[in-house]
Amino acid sequence: MEIRLAKSYGFCFGVKRAIKIAEESPNSVTFGPLIHNKNEINRLKENFNVGLVEEIDEVAPKSRVIVRTHGIPKDKLKILHERDVEVVDATCPFVTKPQQIVEQMSEEGYSVVIFGDKNHPEIKGVMSYAKDPVVVLSVEELQKALPKLKERVATVAQTTRKFSEYTKIVNFLMEHKKEVRVFNTICNATFENQDAARELSREADVMIVIGGKNSSNTKQLFNICKENCPDSYLVENENELQPEWFEGKKLCGITAGASTPDWIIEAVIEKIKKIKV
Amino acid sequence: MEIRLAKSYGFCFGVKRAIKIAEESPNSVTFGPLIHNKNEINRLKENFNVGLVEEIDEVAPKSRVIVRTHGIPKDKLKILHERDVEVVDATCPFVTKPQQIVEQMSEEGYSVVIFGDKNHPEIKGVMSYAKDPVVVLSVEELQKALPKLKERVATVAQTTRKFSEYTKIVNFLMEHKKEVRVFNTICNATFENQDAARELSREADVMIVIGGKNSSNTKQLFNICKENCPDSYLVENENELQPEWFEGKKLCGITAGASTPDWIIEAVIEKIKKIKV
Repeated sequence: MEIRLAKSYGFCFGVKRAIKIAEESPNSVTFGPLIHNKNEINRLKENFNVGLVEEIDEVAPKSRVIVRTHGIPKDKLKILHERDVEVVDATCPFVTKPQQIVEQMSEEGYSVVIFGDKNHPEIKGVMSYAKDPVVVLSVEELQKALPKLKERVATVAQTTRKFSEYTKIVNFLMEHKKEVRVFNTICNATFENQDAARELSREADVMIVIGGKNSSNTKQLFNICKENCPDSYLVENENELQPEWFEGKKLCGITAGASTPDWIIEAVIEKIKKIKV
Repeated sequence: MEIRLAKSYGFCFGVKRAIKIAEESPNSVTFGPLIHNKNEINRLKENFNVGLVEEIDEVAPKSRVIVRTHGIPKDKLKILHERDVEVVDATCPFVTKPQQIVEQMSEEGYSVVIFGDKNHPEIKGVMSYAKDPVVVLSVEELQKALPKLKERVATVAQTTRKFSEYTKIVNFLMEHKKEVRVFNTICNATFENQDAARELSREADVMIVIGGKNSSNTKQLFNICKENCPDSYLVENENELQPEWFEGKKLCGITAGASTPDWIIEAVIEKIKKIKV
């Protein structure tokens, strides 16, 4: 049986980069979880002594602090820089970009509309760089906020939002405002994993999707695979694999959610190789 | 029988303004037809001695030249200003605006996309203010021009285009470029006439639509009226009215295309009043 990985799977560019930065900054703490994955955070603690603090006052003087992938609010970054600590910035460059854009647009006198979830750490960070930003997830919310906005509006999107939803926000703004300055800050990583899973699951006669059973993006991958390959299975790690899944199969496709580290994927592949079919 | 005019009909703001300017500038010439209506151009010639020249070299020294509602290309305006003539600008302010925008955006280094018909006088004027503009009527045309465009694009629309078509252009640009600066330069006048015709034709039991039989916007008005009021008639002037249309009717609704002057509308109303029903 051939085992084939999807062309794109697992961690995105920003997460891979942040982990590399953390590995190269041992004996440090991250301010907030570096990424949304507990296994990986435990590994960084055990192998590199990279700890975790949740509050700024927990940061010890002279220590080394890593800023998380999603970024942090401007005022907190400022406090860190003012303290006697070494700041290592692991903010994804695709997140730094909207932070810079909304800061610049606010300076130029535009109203700022952010398409995203105001409770998500990424958006909390981006919001902190804008003056009186309006943060919305739907046209209905935007409609309510319309009277607050000037005739010149600049807009950015949370990196993981769907493009088709962003166009609805932009088209509504276009209809009601004289100028809309649209910055496409959506990152394709999630969609690249989905496209690759779709492609591979059309060929494979068994598909293994690796990721958290509560992870929304993993479930989306699993649903895509199941549409094309009825023998698709979702596992969190190698212990959940069942030998009978692979009986008589010729091509086993593998993909993984955006929060699944490579070492878990490798362990799953090794286990499948050992299953006699 | 009651006779009721639609809440919005006939000439738009820019055309009314241009005619007023022409009436206040007698013994002059317009450079290109002032508006797209021969009856009105003849009236201005007869009553105010406002003539028409098609070529810049036909403009006599010391004469007074009126710039048409749709505007003219920048180089031609410059030649007029350099000559020994008085220039009276009747360009619609809603057309001057996109001219200014594309000039400014070109200066700021944006690629300029104009959604409109490159053969229409308005767009010929707007184009002349931009550096290497891309002028398109569809996403297919835009796709072909995509490699020519920088990552920062500014876009304007011909004033009479449909908003829903403009969103298609903008959404395609958003998907392919980092920044899209959208200026909503569409004028609502055409749609206001259509909305008002729809409203009135729902109440009326006979509708008279006044306008050129070849005028695209008049035909659109006629189709809207017919949907709601089967007894709808399209006439170019009062001579085409038939007394039997009004027999037993209670409410006669009236609307007119964007190129129909008020004096023709008034003549039609006077004739209907005289028909015994």
